[in-house]
Amino acid sequence: MAAVLRILVANPNATQAITDACLALARVAASPGTEITGWTNHDGPAVVDSFHGDYSAGRPLVRGLRTLTPAPDAVVLAGFGNYGTAAVKEALDIPVVSMAEAAMSLAVPLCHRFAIVTTVPRMIAYTQDLVDELGFAARCAAVRAVALPPLDGPQRPDASVAADVAAEVERLRRDTGADLVILGGARLSPCAAALRRLTAVPVLEPVACGVQVAEALVRLGLRQSKAGKYATPPLPWEAYGS
Amino acid sequence: MAAVLRILVANPNATQAITDACLALARVAASPGTEITGWTNHDGPAVVDSFHGDYSAGRPLVRGLRTLTPAPDAVVLAGFGNYGTAAVKEALDIPVVSMAEAAMSLAVPLCHRFAIVTTVPRMIAYTQDLVDELGFAARCAAVRAVALPPLDGPQRPDASVAADVAAEVERLRRDTGADLVILGGARLSPCAAALRRLTAVPVLEPVACGVQVAEALVRLGLRQSKAGKYATPPLPWEAYGS
Amino acid sequence: MAAVLRILVANPNATQAITDACLALARVAASPGTEITGWTNHDGPAVVDSFHGDYSAGRPLVRGLRTLTPAPDAVVLAGFGNYGTAAVKEALDIPVVSMAEAAMSLAVPLCHRFAIVTTVPRMIAYTQDLVDELGFAARCAAVRAVALPPLDGPQRPDASVAADVAAEVERLRRDTGADLVILGGARLSPCAAALRRLTAVPVLEPVACGVQVAEALVRLGLRQSKAGKYATPPLPWEAYGS
Amino acid sequence: MAAVLRILVANPNATQAITDACLALARVAASPGTEITGWTNHDGPAVVDSFHGDYSAGRPLVRGLRTLTPAPDAVVLAGFGNYGTAAVKEALDIPVVSMAEAAMSLAVPLCHRFAIVTTVPRMIAYTQDLVDELGFAARCAAVRAVALPPLDGPQRPDASVAADVAAEVERLRRDTGADLVILGGARLSPCAAALRRLTAVPVLEPVACGVQVAEALVRLGLRQSKAGKYATPPLPWEAYGS
Amino acid sequence: MAAVLRILVANPNATQAITDACLALARVAASPGTEITGWTNHDGPAVVDSFHGDYSAGRPLVRGLRTLTPAPDAVVLAGFGNYGTAAVKEALDIPVVSMAEAAMSLAVPLCHRFAIVTTVPRMIAYTQDLVDELGFAARCAAVRAVALPPLDGPQRPDASVAADVAAEVERLRRDTGADLVILGGARLSPCAAALRRLTAVPVLEPVACGVQVAEALVRLGLRQSKAGKYATPPLPWEAYGS
Amino acid sequence: MAAVLRILVANPNATQAITDACLALARVAASPGTEITGWTNHDGPAVVDSFHGDYSAGRPLVRGLRTLTPAPDAVVLAGFGNYGTAAVKEALDIPVVSMAEAAMSLAVPLCHRFAIVTTVPRMIAYTQDLVDELGFAARCAAVRAVALPPLDGPQRPDASVAADVAAEVERLRRDTGADLVILGGARLSPCAAALRRLTAVPVLEPVACGVQVAEALVRLGLRQSKAGKYATPPLPWEAYGS
Repeated sequence: MAAVLRILVANPNATQAITDACLALARVAASPGTEITGWTNHDGPAVVDSFHGDYSAGRPLVRGLRTLTPAPDAVVLAGFGNYGTAAVKEALDIPVVSMAEAAMSLAVPLCHRFAIVTTVPRMIAYTQDLVDELGFAARCAAVRAVALPPLDGPQRPDASVAADVAAEVERLRRDTGADLVILGGARLSPCAAALRRLTAVPVLEPVACGVQVAEALVRLGLRQSKAGKYATPPLPWEAYGS
Repeated sequence: MAAVLRILVANPNATQAITDACLALARVAASPGTEITGWTNHDGPAVVDSFHGDYSAGRPLVRGLRTLTPAPDAVVLAGFGNYGTAAVKEALDIPVVSMAEAAMSLAVPLCHRFAIVTTVPRMIAYTQDLVDELGFAARCAAVRAVALPPLDGPQRPDASVAADVAAEVERLRRDTGADLVILGGARLSPCAAALRRLTAVPVLEPVACGVQVAEALVRLGLRQSKAGKYATPPLPWEAYGS
Repeated sequence: MAAVLRILVANPNATQAITDACLALARVAASPGTEITGWTNHDGPAVVDSFHGDYSAGRPLVRGLRTLTPAPDAVVLAGFGNYGTAAVKEALDIPVVSMAEAAMSLAVPLCHRFAIVTTVPRMIAYTQDLVDELGFAARCAAVRAVALPPLDGPQRPDASVAADVAAEVERLRRDTGADLVILGGARLSPCAAALRRLTAVPVLEPVACGVQVAEALVRLGLRQSKAGKYATPPLPWEAYGS
Repeated sequence: MAAVLRILVANPNATQAITDACLALARVAASPGTEITGWTNHDGPAVVDSFHGDYSAGRPLVRGLRTLTPAPDAVVLAGFGNYGTAAVKEALDIPVVSMAEAAMSLAVPLCHRFAIVTTVPRMIAYTQDLVDELGFAARCAAVRAVALPPLDGPQRPDASVAADVAAEVERLRRDTGADLVILGGARLSPCAAALRRLTAVPVLEPVACGVQVAEALVRLGLRQSKAGKYATPPLPWEAYGS
Repeated sequence: MAAVLRILVANPNATQAITDACLALARVAASPGTEITGWTNHDGPAVVDSFHGDYSAGRPLVRGLRTLTPAPDAVVLAGFGNYGTAAVKEALDIPVVSMAEAAMSLAVPLCHRFAIVTTVPRMIAYTQDLVDELGFAARCAAVRAVALPPLDGPQRPDASVAADVAAEVERLRRDTGADLVILGGARLSPCAAALRRLTAVPVLEPVACGVQVAEALVRLGLRQSKAGKYATPPLPWEAYGS
Repeated sequence: MAAVLRILVANPNATQAITDACLALARVAASPGTEITGWTNHDGPAVVDSFHGDYSAGRPLVRGLRTLTPAPDAVVLAGFGNYGTAAVKEALDIPVVSMAEAAMSLAVPLCHRFAIVTTVPRMIAYTQDLVDELGFAARCAAVRAVALPPLDGPQRPDASVAADVAAEVERLRRDTGADLVILGGARLSPCAAALRRLTAVPVLEPVACGVQVAEALVRLGLRQSKAGKYATPPLPWEAYGS
């Protein structure tokens, strides 16, 4: 194990403010001796708010992360989505974990069924697909949304967002029996602390989960399997497009 | 219904020879009065042979198809995969169908359980994920692979590939009860005719399926739902990256 | 491909008025050069409104279709149900598709999850079984019902039925996230045009879907697999009952 | 509870020899005080060997059982299939159980995962559909077939059939971990006793299971729910065909 | 078949009043010639109201039942849960059936989808897990709860409990289409008769179901498979703890 | 976060040698600053080799862990099974994770589908149930077994066990496409290092996974939800048995 454990928190979108917010959460979540650095997907979309946003993110994300020097010990992908997570795992030889994978993985030992709250109704379908792809459908009670304002206008205070999420959590408990909530979007992550004061169910903030799972994988000497799905792509990098 | 029905066959990868082969198959499959044009994703990967290839394809695919003038009546995505199919559906207001969706949809009324034969072992996991995402797992008996040579070297004759696929089909029938086979890759499509002479099970060649499903959607006045998952992305196009 | 493509629209029930309504929808949906003929299951039930209706339909349906001369190029079974669809596929050597199969198959590329609206509450369970049998459960958000009057009394105007379905569609969107609706019964098909003016989600009218899928199968030279489930029954026809 | 409990064993096919064999098994399985009578579907198919056979059986089966006088206390449908089981449940007000339902229901408390052995390869798909429809897929390890000779030729001795089934059971144990076998066809039922001497796994003979489950339902005062799927069909009987 | 069939009804908890109530129900449900005896798990928990209650019950349950002399012909485990059912099946050579298994097995031929009503909200998750473990998820529409008072205080009259369950059943029918209800706890069993007067859906009282299924297994000469999951534990009994 | 993080590794069985082996693995896996202590379930079974072993373990496990003073920061349950994991979570207010949960959770971001190798064929069914209960069935390719000698006789060297597991892993890759292996039993854990030298797929040793997941939960301030399934049992402890 390295004396210092270096984790890169990679924001799949181009919005520096989101990277900064994730970085702050990541540093609080990191163990002593872990060094967190941030990375922003400057050629990516302003936000991953659609499948188009998702695919706009993935290509520059892989390219950017593949050529980072020096490589960190692990990468946390700090967006609650897909946006080429598997492609990053193929391209890198170090452990890569998305914050969605990390949050759902850690939810399993903690609850009967978790709910995910996302940031906008149109991302419910996107998030349901994500849950299915990761194989967690049996443990996910529901995906719901609260409404956040557009990214380029004035933002709501964390306490106000937290109140909306808390109300949704109570509806989820009553309707579905969910007993844990995952914040399904980096834009919701900052309200986690306020939300915890408003609800009795555990609140999983995925950036923090991602950091802890990444640390765990490094300490265990594990990374994604290179003996199957995540093997290095067969062609030279330039064959995948300029 | 337009007097002439114009279908664009879009190859998600950058290899013109694959576009040409798909175009030939598409023209044979088209109804009288349908006009087929081809499009190659020149900024995409040489081939979609991995998740990295998939995400390398999606971003330029959307950009290229979004700005085509004049727009065709429908688009067939001529690769057996995902590579941003949902993003294309968001971006366009005309019907978009991938050849994988078309082939699996048409397989449903024709068989008990279909098998998919893909071009290389590492794409089995990729293809299984695709089947799951589309919701066809209950009807898919298995995904198997035959081995094709690299794209940049000499290619095997269709008859030789067909013989390998036919042998795999017999194994699939015996092992899994599959009673229909889908060719799971544009590179396998040209061997369909030869394969049909070697096996008793129906052989679905997905380019042809894509053309026919696209025609059907146009004639029925249908396109992907804009009332949910496939609504136009919320931000201006330039917000998704240069 | 035949110069003229001949599709038989077979109504599994004995009510000529339903055959006529389906025939009208089918002719509008057909491609130029397709010739549509109708067939009524005169020894079948007045309507397939139960499992008893379903099994009452299947036996004379097979017998009637098996002995038609000359055989058409394909058969569309114009009832939203099962009623021996597999038996017809066994008995015939031409492509056979039920309108339920066709509608669900075409829904896949168009939506996240579809809803089905049927004609009477007791058919919800029947239709859920149908969705499961066809393997579309992962893509079906819900089955709901509106109430149609008995077939032998005065019928409601299409606009009135459409208004009820539209209201149900809004509830389905809110409750389940469904973003496409399939009309789950031949009696609902005539209200499709009126319904489309009342809702933003795509409306699939299954008779039209059946015609287009049948045309596609004929053009592609495909029919149900005779190498498994749909092989010709082993005994002489008379061994299956007078 | 009636002093004497009267169970009708209804053979969905027209072959009296199968009725007689089922009747013999049923009488051995019945409790003291239960009276078993047999019924043959004389207008049905010689054997339910296909979906065509299935639908040929269902219509005369319902008609015949609906008008039996006096009605028995319960009906056991003595074929391993569907052939209109739900239609019979709709039509009758007494408990109706198919031998397939009974066998799978009783298998649940006895094993980890059961296997079904059917009589001919083409019935594997049919039987898999049946398992799915009944909701037992999670408990069914596999469906396999042994080959029986045609019904109209010389039959194999029970011991010979039993030896084939026993060999298949050993393969199933090794390949799938199945730890119980259900004989999936009335023609296999007579070999149950011989088979039990050849294998360590429990052998469920479905006619006997059907009799015991039917008795249980009568003693418990239960029948199929008339508050949903199995409500009496809405139209007069003559509306379902002559 | 034994002249007298002896069934032991084993209460997994330590509350004699529950044993007595189950015994009364079991005797009414038993066939003539069946002799019912009761057994109380005196070293078990007062009630199985949690996973802790479940695991507190299982160990003394196995020990107590394993050493009973003389052994009965079959055992019915009279609690609606798991509490080591599989361990009892391993330990005994006679048929063992839990009342939850029996009720769900008998529900299959009687309904489209059953609902389970349990006694306290916290047991909903526990009961959902049970349904999943037994493989009945495809047939279970929902698990809901009514609220019973603590066991050590005054109890509500059966009619009052029945009224609450009946109201819940109506909600279940409307919300989920459930058309049969299973009483999911021994404490609810005594209200079955009152409930039947208040609802049109069949009411399954699991103690009675357990008795009838146990009788059926004995008459059929069946018991849990000893060729797999339920084989006798490999070590001497004393190796499993004092 | 506590300056020192104290993790208890609790062996559900009574065999001190297994506790010691787990303790050694746990200490290697722990982060600097984590203090590992061991605990043996002295009133439990010699080994959890059956459902009887499982239920023999659970009751004393809860009792022993509930009364430990001072409580650690988290508990890792060091057996690859169930044995009352949920009951421990109910009883304790600190995070509790079983090594099976931890290993499967960490496998998700690392592979397409994992395989589990257990220690004896009879535990395959037990382990399949465990995978289903935890909701990981969609990600588990297969459960297989190698054969270990009885615990009370001479043990095989780690290298020899590792060779057997490696051979099984190759079969799993070929048959099922599994690309990661989890060692499904504490007795297999010591061979992990040797196995890693023999196979290209990642090897998850669950004790180590448990320690890292437990650390992560403590650092994140998380524990099992007390707002549902894992709420403290409702009765006084003594009500659950002496």
